[in-house]
Amino acid sequence: MAKYSVLGTRQSRVDALDKVTGTAIYAADINLPDMLYGKVLRSPYAHANICRLDVSKARALKGVEAVITVDDVPGQKAGREFYSNYPCMARHKVVFAGQPVAVVAAMNQDIARKALELIEVDYEILTPVTDVVEAMKPDAPIIHPHQQANLNLASKAEEGSAPSNVAWHKEFGRGDVDAGFKKADIVLENTFRTQRVHQGYLEPRAAVASVGLGGRITIWTDSQSIFRVREFCAAFLDLPVSKIRVMPVEIGGAFGAKTPQLLSPICALLSLKSGRPVKIVMTREEDLITNHPAPDSTITIKVGADKEGHLIAVSATVIFDKGAFTERPSSMAAAVNGLSPYVIPNLKVDCYDVFTNKTPTGSYRAPSATQGAFATESQMDLLARALGIDPLELRLRNVASEGDLMLTASRFPRVGFKETLEKMKQYLSTRGKPEGENRGRGIACGFWMGGVGCTSAHVNVNADGTVALVLGVVDLTGSRTSLAQIAAEEFGIPFEGVTVVSGDTDTAPHSDVTVGSRTTHEMGAAVCRACQDAKDQLIQHAALLLKMKPSELVFANGGVGVAGVPDKFISLADLAKSAISGPGGGPVTGRGSVGTPQQTPMFVAHTADVEVDRETGKVRIVSYVAAQDVGFAINPTLIEGQIQGAVSQGIGWAIMEGYALHEGIIQNPTLLDYRLPTSLDLPSVDTLIVEVKSTTGPYGVRGVGEPPIVPCLATIANAVHSATGVRMRDLPMTPEAVFWALQGKGNSAKEELKRDSMGAADCS
Amino acid sequence: MAKYSVLGTRQSRVDALDKVTGTAIYAADINLPDMLYGKVLRSPYAHANICRLDVSKARALKGVEAVITVDDVPGQKAGREFYSNYPCMARHKVVFAGQPVAVVAAMNQDIARKALELIEVDYEILTPVTDVVEAMKPDAPIIHPHQQANLNLASKAEEGSAPSNVAWHKEFGRGDVDAGFKKADIVLENTFRTQRVHQGYLEPRAAVASVGLGGRITIWTDSQSIFRVREFCAAFLDLPVSKIRVMPVEIGGAFGAKTPQLLSPICALLSLKSGRPVKIVMTREEDLITNHPAPDSTITIKVGADKEGHLIAVSATVIFDKGAFTERPSSMAAAVNGLSPYVIPNLKVDCYDVFTNKTPTGSYRAPSATQGAFATESQMDLLARALGIDPLELRLRNVASEGDLMLTASRFPRVGFKETLEKMKQYLSTRGKPEGENRGRGIACGFWMGGVGCTSAHVNVNADGTVALVLGVVDLTGSRTSLAQIAAEEFGIPFEGVTVVSGDTDTAPHSDVTVGSRTTHEMGAAVCRACQDAKDQLIQHAALLLKMKPSELVFANGGVGVAGVPDKFISLADLAKSAISGPGGGPVTGRGSVGTPQQTPMFVAHTADVEVDRETGKVRIVSYVAAQDVGFAINPTLIEGQIQGAVSQGIGWAIMEGYALHEGIIQNPTLLDYRLPTSLDLPSVDTLIVEVKSTTGPYGVRGVGEPPIVPCLATIANAVHSATGVRMRDLPMTPEAVFWALQGKGNSAKEELKRDSMGAADCS
Repeated sequence: MAKYSVLGTRQSRVDALDKVTGTAIYAADINLPDMLYGKVLRSPYAHANICRLDVSKARALKGVEAVITVDDVPGQKAGREFYSNYPCMARHKVVFAGQPVAVVAAMNQDIARKALELIEVDYEILTPVTDVVEAMKPDAPIIHPHQQANLNLASKAEEGSAPSNVAWHKEFGRGDVDAGFKKADIVLENTFRTQRVHQGYLEPRAAVASVGLGGRITIWTDSQSIFRVREFCAAFLDLPVSKIRVMPVEIGGAFGAKTPQLLSPICALLSLKSGRPVKIVMTREEDLITNHPAPDSTITIKVGADKEGHLIAVSATVIFDKGAFTERPSSMAAAVNGLSPYVIPNLKVDCYDVFTNKTPTGSYRAPSATQGAFATESQMDLLARALGIDPLELRLRNVASEGDLMLTASRFPRVGFKETLEKMKQYLSTRGKPEGENRGRGIACGFWMGGVGCTSAHVNVNADGTVALVLGVVDLTGSRTSLAQIAAEEFGIPFEGVTVVSGDTDTAPHSDVTVGSRTTHEMGAAVCRACQDAKDQLIQHAALLLKMKPSELVFANGGVGVAGVPDKFISLADLAKSAISGPGGGPVTGRGSVGTPQQTPMFVAHTADVEVDRETGKVRIVSYVAAQDVGFAINPTLIEGQIQGAVSQGIGWAIMEGYALHEGIIQNPTLLDYRLPTSLDLPSVDTLIVEVKSTTGPYGVRGVGEPPIVPCLATIANAVHSATGVRMRDLPMTPEAVFWALQGKGNSAKEELKRDSMGAADCS
Repeated sequence: MAKYSVLGTRQSRVDALDKVTGTAIYAADINLPDMLYGKVLRSPYAHANICRLDVSKARALKGVEAVITVDDVPGQKAGREFYSNYPCMARHKVVFAGQPVAVVAAMNQDIARKALELIEVDYEILTPVTDVVEAMKPDAPIIHPHQQANLNLASKAEEGSAPSNVAWHKEFGRGDVDAGFKKADIVLENTFRTQRVHQGYLEPRAAVASVGLGGRITIWTDSQSIFRVREFCAAFLDLPVSKIRVMPVEIGGAFGAKTPQLLSPICALLSLKSGRPVKIVMTREEDLITNHPAPDSTITIKVGADKEGHLIAVSATVIFDKGAFTERPSSMAAAVNGLSPYVIPNLKVDCYDVFTNKTPTGSYRAPSATQGAFATESQMDLLARALGIDPLELRLRNVASEGDLMLTASRFPRVGFKETLEKMKQYLSTRGKPEGENRGRGIACGFWMGGVGCTSAHVNVNADGTVALVLGVVDLTGSRTSLAQIAAEEFGIPFEGVTVVSGDTDTAPHSDVTVGSRTTHEMGAAVCRACQDAKDQLIQHAALLLKMKPSELVFANGGVGVAGVPDKFISLADLAKSAISGPGGGPVTGRGSVGTPQQTPMFVAHTADVEVDRETGKVRIVSYVAAQDVGFAINPTLIEGQIQGAVSQGIGWAIMEGYALHEGIIQNPTLLDYRLPTSLDLPSVDTLIVEVKSTTGPYGVRGVGEPPIVPCLATIANAVHSATGVRMRDLPMTPEAVFWALQGKGNSAKEELKRDSMGAADCS
C-alpha cells in the first residue's frame, strides 16, 4: 500500500464542532424578515372521494396570505403529474391518510392552524385497501383506476388494459429451476415478512422558500440533493431551473428519506403566491405520518442444495407494499441484492410492487436489500441447520467472487466477500461460543450493489496555499471530511488546510443525489480530478517561474519541483500567491467531473450473540460484530461510526420498530409509541475493516454507508433461533411476538413447526 | 465586424429590477439573531497625544459585550502596522479628526452610544499640519516621527534618517527640458489646485460580521473585492484567510472608496470578542468625515511649444496632500495620466506625496488622472489661446498614437485617441458655436492607463442548457450584465439563459479588486476561457454520442455538430442533460483564469458649453458631449450610463463640491452642506462611442468607467474661460470663487492677470 499522510487517519469530522455546540444551521433555523408560516391540511382517511373542498373561509381569514390546492399547482396545470417524490396533493380523491388536501400560509402558526380548521371538505369514505394479498386480487377496489401494471409507473393506463393495484411486475431468472430442484438433495421453502419502518432521522422535514432577487426563488430544505430539489420545484412550479436557487443547510439524518420533496415545492408555491418568505416545519407526528417509510415486504423463497450445501436452484416471489404512490420498483432490487452474494446456477424470481391505501413508501438505507437479505440469509441459516453445516462455512461454499455472474447478468469485478467471511471466521475463532441458557449466536451476510450518479467538484487554491473544495453534494455521513482528506493528500498539505464548502445550486457544479453509498466513491474521483487539474496549472506556473518545461516538473511534497533537486522547488503557497499577483495563467482553480460510473459491489458479514427472556420474549443483543470490505479506509473512525449507526438501525427494525395501522391510519405517530432503540437498547458493536481495493474508486475505496444495515435483521433472527430453537419469519421480533412464538402461536411459530419436522440442527 | 447576437445589444441590467424595487440586499440589510451593534469613538482633534484612555466604565455598562482599542488588535500584537486600507486605530496619538480611538459592541445602538460617552480620553492637543506647503518645510511638526520619505510607505524610518512629512518623492523624465524650453517659441507656467472631494456614493459604509460555523468568521460588507476584505481582515485578526468567509452583497456605489476596509476588520474583531454577530453602519456624517476622499493636489506645470503648437518640453511639480496615512503614492500617477496623451520629447516631473493632519485620502474614479488632467488640459487650453490655435486642433497636432513612447517608458499599443478627437471634431462641426452673452465652450481630453489584476471565472452548464456564471468579482457598474452577454454569445443562447452568480470567497474562484475599469476587460477574458473550457467538454461529450472524433466537431449555433450537416447536431441542452444523466465525462463545468495582463490605455474627449452669471458667479452647464474610445461596445446603454455618471461627478468636483476644513476638522459633513450635484444641476450629456479595438480585451473591449471623469474639470474651466475670459486655476469653481475671480480677486484671478498679459485668444 502507498504511504499516505492524511488518508487513513482518524480526522475529526469538519462538522463535528458546529453540531455538538448547536451552531450548525438546519432548514428550520432559517428565519427571514416578514416570513409566513405554512401548514398542511391532511386527509384523515386512507381512501375517500373528495365531494366538496371549500377554502374560501380560510382565504378570507385575516393574516392568511395564501391558500393552495392541487388546482393551484402550475406544473399540474401544465399537464404534469406528481407522485411520491412530490407533495402528492389530492385531486378528487385521497388515497392515503395524511395526503395533503390544501396548504395555507399565514402570519403566524396560530392563524395558520385556525385557517386549516376553516377549510371545509366533504369526504365520501371508500374501503381502504391495506393488505397486499387482498390488493392483488382481481376483485379488489382499484386505488388508481387509470394506472396499470408493468408500464412506466407515472403513466396512465392504455385504453382497454385492465386496471390493477399491481404497480409493477417482472419475472426474471436463469437456468432451469425445476430441473435444479429435482437434482437437489434438500429443498426448503419459507415466507418472510418485514414491516414498514421509519428512517429514524433526528430532524423532521422542513423548508423555507423566499421569492426574492430577480424574481428567483431561494429555497432552504432538508434533502439529499440540492440539484434534485431544484429540479422538483422547477417542475412543480413550471419554471426553468435557472429561476430557482437551492441553498445548502445541514441535514439531520436522511437515510434515503430526504430525496422526495414533500414540503419544498409547496413552500415555494406559497412564497410565489404570497410574495413573501414562507417556512413549513413538520411536527414529529406529521413527519411520522407522512414521510415515506421503508416498504413492507413479503418474500417467499425456495432453495435447493446438495448435501454439502452448494446451492443448485432458488426461486422466489417478492411482493412489496408500496403504499399509495410509487415512482420506482423495489421488489426486483430486493431479489438482486438479496441473492447476489451467492453462486446460484438456476434461478427464477417473480417480483411485484403493489399499491395499497397507505402512505407512499420510499428509500431507507440500502433500500430493498435489507428486506431481501432477511429472506435469503434466514433461509441460508435454515439450510445450514437442515444440513448440519456451520452457517459461515455454508456461505463460504457458495460465495460469489470476481468473474461470477451477478443477477444483473454482468460479472463481478474484484470483491472482498470471501475475505470478509474469512476475517469474521478468524475473529470468531478467538471467541468462545455464547454461554448460558437462552443464549445463541446468529450470522448473516449482506450485499449492496452501489449507487451511481454524476458528480463534479471545484477546488480554489488560496494565496496562502490553503484550498477550498466547492461541492454541490449533500453531506449526510461525513463525506466532507473524507473528501477533505483526499484533497489534502493530493496537494500534500495538512488536513486543516482544506476548507470544504457546501455550495448552492448556483455556485456549485452539478452533482447528483447523495444515495447508495456513492458519495465518497464517486465524488472522491471528481475531487481527485479537480486537484489534478489545479496541480497541472501549478506545474505550468512553476515552469514559467523556473524557466523550465512543464514536463520536467512534478507536483510532490506540497509543491512543484524537479525530483531530487531541492533548489528547484516552489511551494504550493508561493506558486498560488505568484499566480494571483503576477503574470501567468492567473488564479489557480481546478475542476473535476465524473459521469455515471460502474457500480461497485460491497459485502459485509455480521454476527450477533443474543439472550432471550423466555418469560417476556424480550431479545437482548449481548454482543455484535460487523465485518465489512470497504476497499480502502480513508477515515477508519467515520467508517466505524457508519457501521455502528447502521447496526443500531437494523436492531431497531429487527426487534422494536413498526407502524401500528388501523384501516390504513397510523396509530402510533409519536416517538413514545413508535419505539426507536436508545443507547440502553444497544450493544457495543465491534467492527472489522477489510480492505480489498475496488477497481473503480479512488485509492480503491468502496461505499460504506448502506451495507452494514443489510444483514442485521437476519443476523438477529438467526441468533434468536440459535438461542431458542424458534424461527422468527415475521418482523419485528418484539417481546410479544417472540413470547407467542415460544408458545407455539403466531405465523413464525407455525412455520417453525414445519421446519422442525424437517430436522434442523442448531449449529451455534 | 463579426455579427453578434447578444453582444452589442442594449440589455437591461440584471440587477435593475432588484434595485429599483428595493429588494436588493446591501450589507446594512443583513440582520442576524442576537446581533450586536457597533459604534466607533472617533478623535475630535486632528493632531493630539492621547495621555489617558480608559474604557473600563464602558466595558462595565450593562448591554455592552465588547470594547476594543488598538491594543486588542491581534494583527497589531503580531507586529503588523495598519494604514489607510484599515481602520487606522489610534495608538498614543491621533493624527486626524475622525480617527478611531475605541470601538464598542452593545445590545442596541442606544447602549452603544452611551458606552462611547463613558470612554474617558485625555488629549494633549498638538498643532495640526493642514497645508502641504507648510508640511514640507523642514521645521514643520512631524506627523509620523518614525516614518521617512522614499521608503516603503508602511515601513518605519531607518536609524539616522531625518523624519519628514514627505511620504514619498520621485523625479523622473526624459530628454533635456532646459534645452527644450530654450528651443520653444512659447513657454507657459501655471499652478493648478484641486480640492479633496468625497466619492459621492449613495451607500454609507457598513459591515456585519458573525463568528459562526467551525469558528470561522463570515463577513458582509461594502467593498470592491471580497477577496481583499478577506485578506485585510485576516491580517488584522492574525488569522489564516481560510478562517474568513466574505459574502457578496450589492454595493451602493464605490468609485474607488470601498477598497479600504474601515469597518469590516473591527466589526469582525468585535464579533470574535463577543462571540455574537455585530453590525456597524456609518451615519452619513461619519461617512463624510472618515471615508478616504480624493486627495488635494497642487500641480505646477510649465510647457514649451513651437509656434504651430507642437510640444517641445514639459516640466511639472506635482504635490498630493495624502492626509494622515497612505499606502500608495498618487503624485506620479497624476503626472503619468495627465501627460500621456501627448508626444513630449523633453520631460521632467518632480512628484511629492505629503502627510497632513487630515483624513487619509483614497482612490476616486480614475484616481490622480483627473487632478493631472486638470493641470495639463487647462494648460493646453492656455497654450492654444496664446498661440491662437483651435484647442482641438492643438491636441490633434500633439496626439499620441500606436508606437509612441508612454510615460511608463513602454510604447503605446493601438489606441483610438486620434479617432476620438476626430469624432468630436466632426460632431462639433454640425453644431454652431455657443451663442449669447457669457456663454463659452471648453474642450479637454482624458487618458486612463487601465487597471490590472488577476481574475477567474467558473461556468456551470445546467441540464436545461441554461448556464450559471460564478464570479468572485464585485459588480459596481453593471459588469454582471456585460459578462452575461459574453457568456450568452459564447454559448449561442439567449441573454436570459445566463444567470450571473456573485459567489463568496469560499465558492468563487479568486478575482482581484474591481478598480481601474478592468472588470469587463479582464473578467471578460476569463469568462471567454471558462466558456471555451465548457465547450471543449461539450464537444468531447458530443463526440461520444455521435461516435465521432472531437476534432470533426465544432460548437456553433447553440450546440455541437458538423459544419453544414444538420442531422449531425446536438443542442447544448441535450448535451448538458446527457452529460449529467449518463456515462461520459460528467457534469459540464468550465473554468477560466487570467493573470495580470497588459494595461489597455483609454482616451476620451469632452466638450462643454457653459453660461456664467456675472452677478452671482454661477456656472450653468448648458450642454455637454463626451466622446470615448471603448474598443468594442458590449452594451451601449451601460456605456452611456457610465459616461453620464462620470460627467455628473466631474461637474460636481468642478463647480460645487469640497470639504470645508478648520484646523483639519471637517465643517460640512452633511449632504446639505457638502453640495453634490442633483439632476437639476446637470445638463443632458450626449455620448459619442468610438470603437478602435484594443489588442488585449475580448472582442477588442477597453475599460469604460474611469476615463469619462478625467477631462471634466478642465473642460468646464476651459469653457468658463471661453465664456468670461477668466482662468480658474483653483477648484471648485463655486459661484463665490467665480464671482471674486471676475472681480479680479483670488488666486485664479491673479494668475489670470498674468495670463492676460501673455495675450491669449478666445478660440471658442
